[in-house]
Order: sequence, then C-alpha cells, then structure tokens
Amino acid sequence: MKSTCVRRVAIGLSGLVWAAAVLAQEAGVAGPAWTTLRGHRYPQIGADLRGTFRISAPGAGQVFLSLSGRREMSKDAEGVWTITTGPLPPGFHYYSFMVDGVSLADPASESYFGMGRMVSGIEVPSRGEDFYEAKEVAHGEVRERSWVTRSAREVRKVVVYTPPDYDRDSGSRYPVLYLQHGYGEDRRAWWRQGRVNFILDNLLAAGVAKPMIVVMEDGGIATGLGGGGRPPVGDRLAFAEAFEKVMIDELIPMIDGAYRTIADREHRAIAGTSLGGWQAIQIGLRHLEAFGFIGGFSPGLPPEVSRIAGDAAGFNEKVRVFFLGTGTVEREANPNIRDLHEALDKAGVRHVYYESPGTAHEWLTWRRDLRQFAPLLFQE
Amino acid sequence: MKSTCVRRVAIGLSGLVWAAAVLAQEAGVAGPAWTTLRGHRYPQIGADLRGTFRISAPGAGQVFLSLSGRREMSKDAEGVWTITTGPLPPGFHYYSFMVDGVSLADPASESYFGMGRMVSGIEVPSRGEDFYEAKEVAHGEVRERSWVTRSAREVRKVVVYTPPDYDRDSGSRYPVLYLQHGYGEDRRAWWRQGRVNFILDNLLAAGVAKPMIVVMEDGGIATGLGGGGRPPVGDRLAFAEAFEKVMIDELIPMIDGAYRTIADREHRAIAGTSLGGWQAIQIGLRHLEAFGFIGGFSPGLPPEVSRIAGDAAGFNEKVRVFFLGTGTVEREANPNIRDLHEALDKAGVRHVYYESPGTAHEWLTWRRDLRQFAPLLFQE
Repeated sequence: MKSTCVRRVAIGLSGLVWAAAVLAQEAGVAGPAWTTLRGHRYPQIGADLRGTFRISAPGAGQVFLSLSGRREMSKDAEGVWTITTGPLPPGFHYYSFMVDGVSLADPASESYFGMGRMVSGIEVPSRGEDFYEAKEVAHGEVRERSWVTRSAREVRKVVVYTPPDYDRDSGSRYPVLYLQHGYGEDRRAWWRQGRVNFILDNLLAAGVAKPMIVVMEDGGIATGLGGGGRPPVGDRLAFAEAFEKVMIDELIPMIDGAYRTIADREHRAIAGTSLGGWQAIQIGLRHLEAFGFIGGFSPGLPPEVSRIAGDAAGFNEKVRVFFLGTGTVEREANPNIRDLHEALDKAGVRHVYYESPGTAHEWLTWRRDLRQFAPLLFQE
Repeated sequence: MKSTCVRRVAIGLSGLVWAAAVLAQEAGVAGPAWTTLRGHRYPQIGADLRGTFRISAPGAGQVFLSLSGRREMSKDAEGVWTITTGPLPPGFHYYSFMVDGVSLADPASESYFGMGRMVSGIEVPSRGEDFYEAKEVAHGEVRERSWVTRSAREVRKVVVYTPPDYDRDSGSRYPVLYLQHGYGEDRRAWWRQGRVNFILDNLLAAGVAKPMIVVMEDGGIATGLGGGGRPPVGDRLAFAEAFEKVMIDELIPMIDGAYRTIADREHRAIAGTSLGGWQAIQIGLRHLEAFGFIGGFSPGLPPEVSRIAGDAAGFNEKVRVFFLGTGTVEREANPNIRDLHEALDKAGVRHVYYESPGTAHEWLTWRRDLRQFAPLLFQE
C-alpha cells in the first residue's frame, strides 16, 4: 500500500479583499509589516521582502537584530539603530534585538509567547500564498474559555475555534480537532502565530474541508528552554504524558459537554507541532478508542511509532488518517520523519506524508501542514 | 434629585478555589506574580506585596525598573540585575526595564498592548478584594471575531464576552454593553488588563448583575503616544469621532445580526475608560436613540457634557443610568469629574458618582468602576 501524495489543495477563492500589504510589497512598495503595531512605522517589509527594523538606543554600544542569525545594526546621529536586511524568508518568524547583549522584544511589534518567553514576531508575506490570510469570507470565532479540572480544581484556559454559523445553526453538531502547540509555546500559538482560524475559514469557504471545532490547550510548561534548544528525551516523554491525563480524563469530556460535538473517534482528531506533534502521536496511538485521525507536523517521534509497522493491518483498520509533515529545509538536518514515512511505506502502513517546500522548523511549515491535513479529516 | 451613592456590592461567593498566590502572598510567602510566564520564577510578589524583579544584562552599565517611577537595580557577579521594591500598589501596573536608556519589556512576564506599544504588566494582589479573580464559578467565553465593514471593506477584529450558558440556552436573548479601552490600548485591554470576563462571571454567580454580552472594539489608533502623555483636545475629539461612525453604522448592526441581542436602547449600554470614556460619553449623548445607559470610567470629558445640566428633566427621562467614576488619587490632580458630578447634582441631573479609594488613573480603578456599573444595567 502506498502513501498518498498530497498535492496542494486548489482553492478557488473569488471576490477577495485582503492584504493590500501583499500587493504593495509585491510591487516593491515598503510598508509596516502586518505584525507591526498600530501607530508605528517600523518594522517594515519592502521591495523583495527586505525588512527594515529600527530601535532607539542612544546609550547602547552595539545592537544586533536576531532573526535567522545575528545581523549587525548601525546607529545614526540621534541614537536610532537601523538595519535593512536582504530578502527575508516568507512566513512568520520570531525575532529580537540584542542591545549590549540583552535580548529585547521590539516594543513596536506584536509580542508572542514563544521560545518560553515573550518575543517579537514578524509576518513576511509569501508570494502567491494567501491561504492563511484574513479574507472577506465567513469567519468563525476564536474563543478563550476558562474551565476547572475536577482532579486538581485548577482553573485552566482553552482556546476554541468554532466555525462560521456555529451559533446560528444551533441544531448541528461538529467533529473536533485537538491541535497542540510546540515546546515553549502555549494554547495561543496556533491562533496568534499559526492563524488557525483564517486557515479554516478559507478552507471552509472553498468547500474543501468539513466544518469542525478546533481545541487548543496548554500542553506543557516551558521551563528553562531559553533559545530554542532541544530538551532531552526524558523531558519530552514527561511533557507528553503530563498532558495525556488532562486531555483524556478532563478536557475531552468538558469540550463534549460545553460544545455541540460529535463525541466519537470517527469525529475526533489530534495533531500537533514539533513537541506537540510528539504529544499528538503518543496520545493518539495510546488512545485509538478516542481518536480516528492523527497528525504530526514536524513532530518529535515518541517510542510508540516503532510499533506501528509490526501491525500494519490493524493500524490501517483503526487509523483513518495518519499524517506526517516536515519542511524540506529542516529535513536535511533531521530526516527522522522521512525515514519513518519510508519505513511505513515499506510495511504497508497507510499514511500521508507531506513536505513543505523551502521551509524549516517554523510556522509556515505548520500552517501548510494544517492546510493539507484539515481537508482529509472527517470525510465519509 | 441626588446622585446615588453606591456602596460596594456585597458578593457572597462560597466554595471558591482561587489564587493560592493571594493566600501565599498574604501569608508573606514570595512567589511568581500571576502575570509571570509559566516556567519563570521572576517577577515575584512577596511579603507585604514587595516585588522582586530580575533581568540578565551583563553588558549593561545601568538598569532601572520603571514602575510608578524609576527604581535603580543592582548587578550581581553574573550580570543579573535585581531589585526588591517596597510594597507595591495593589492592582495591575505596566512596567519596563530601562537598560542603558532603552525601554525593555520583561521577557519573563506577560506583555500587553498599552501606552501605544508592547509593555510588561504585573498583577499585584489587592487584599480582601477578589471580584476580578478566576474562581470556580460558571465562566463565560471571550471571543475574537473578525468582521468586514461594508463601507471600507476592511477586516476588523472585535472581542466579545458572552455569559455562561450563552450557547446552551439558545432561545434567550441578551442586552449588550459596548465597552471601550483608553488611548494607547486596543480591543484586548478590557479582557487582558481589565479581566472583564472574570468580573462579569463573578457578578453573575452572585446574582447581582443581569447576564449581558460585552463588546470591545478598537476605538482608536495610538499614534505617537509614547510614555503616557496627554494628546491635545483636537486629537481627542477626532479619536472619538472616527469611531462613532464605525460603531453606529457598522458595529452595532453586525453585533445585532451575529449574536442573540435585544436590539433596543433599553438593552444597550456604552462605557469606556479614560479617552474611551470620552468616546463613550460623546457617542452615548449623541445617540440616545441607541443607548439607554452611559458610563465614564476616569473619562475625558467631551464638550457634550456641558449641555446636560441645561435640560435635566429631558436627560433624566432618557438616560436610565449615567455613571461617572474616578480614583481618589487621580482626583487630586484632575478634579474635573467630581466637578461635573457636583454640577449635575446642583442641576438635578440623576447620575451615579463613584470614587475608587486609594487608586489613580489605572486598571484597578476601572475594574472597580465596572463592578459598580454592571449591576446597575438593564434592571427593570
């Protein structure tokens, strides 16, 4: 049995009004990035996707921009440090200023919880690619709900995407995708960095995905992960296991009670990013009674995957979709995911393998993964 | 006719599980602030509400904590700068580190859009005051909805609080409070800085407020407001007027279409904070056909207020509740609001005047305002 080779889903969206910034930037006109705060002119994205960054630091001796490596900035007579970069890689990137060795979020740009701390992010348009943009289509909602666990009586927060017309059509019930962030991020990451709502809105407007609820919870705690290092395997196991109990015993029942879900494995999926992909695969494979669909987006690979090939027939019967995604750039350094894909192919395990062209271990890879994965879910 | 003197609403909540941090801090045990990010130990709030802040900056020559004034920090052998303050004022406060003259958000603490930029915030517990805490009560949802204006075909975002059971009880309809942020903030401020959802959840659990929807939109643009300066009056007028058209022509009809509202002036209120209070009063007084309830929380005062006293009878007939709030500390520097209250009293204009004890132009004042104001709304 061969893996399914997914082509990019063709989306015939028409009548769109969106992102004058993209057009301006494609025409070579500089303007504030989408992530630049209202009332601020910089950071800007200009011709050929060159970025211009500014920070006022008259007293500083040395300032770097930290974005895909360290880039030296230069100071003008007023003490404003500036850099115009070469063309930046498309997609969403974390960045900082290094001011005399101190890492500084840009006060003029949105901050995000990533890499275990508050850090700036910049959105660099990807030419010809608008599937994650806010368009003039029907929009779902992103909701933050506070809930209390029965076991710990702890107040937690969960982010929930509901599709357009969820409230209007109060008789209908929906399947659910549980979607996890990576290490050093939290429940907000798929919303704010990933633009999950716009990706789903656009897929639904194009009629290529089933309306679904997406649930995003805090999968872990980012202790001590400063600059993107890899935590040891023991920590990764614990990271996944700590959340397994919350998800199975508490979160799923709460969601099934609070939202109009279809509460069975044929209508429940789990996926995640990076270490959240490790979680998704580990929890999904351990709980096939709960999940019919499993996705790993640049996932860490838990020990459970080594057992899949031994029971291809059983796996093929139970798992409706098993999705593995990676970026062609990150694959060079870490071919584990492709290796797993090839081993599964050899063993006759049905799965979907997707490579995001030209991207690394980053949000553009994961947005594309979701765009490939979501249309495969909950189809008859 | 006298103004109504509001006493603190007595909330008899029982069986609560909340904020071990408060108990610990009241007992004199230091711990991370509620606003400290997961996985980080500092900032901490300790005995007597002293704050301890840390930032690693080995290369820096001078570091200040900027929080209610500038406080000098000291460096240890590893280049970590530390300060333990005296007792901090209770409530939510913006703060920054000044590293060799550069203002730096604390990467270990939540960042907020405030003062026109990304800035750190710290929550200092207020003893004996828990009305804005996340408790074990029924919780509403905070939703972010994207919507497209017909006039500009612009994709905007609005934050909407829906009360507990909004989705469960699909036959019921709700009154709406439009609630505006101040200058240099945005739609997220009442949610993230103001804790509007927990304030409403707790009032509803106590049975002292009517279930309502709260709508928070982007009232303005924070151009060039760096450090909390006061924009000139012309700008303030423009700030309010730019939003009036969006609210009346576009936002209210959209909300009435998308949510189960009761779409008349008897079930619609407008309130706001600081310059958002100016907006609320200006828009409210100009559109009494749309709003039956108006609230200004430390508001700037638009020219319209000078006409109220001339038609007390007409005003008393039309405006169900006119609420003015201020903090006793900010009142010293700016007695305008109390002066207006006294003029309205003299003229026989029915209104509610509330002074928040011991607070300045800050979020604790505005949280208390909302706690006073919300129970007055939509009562028969």
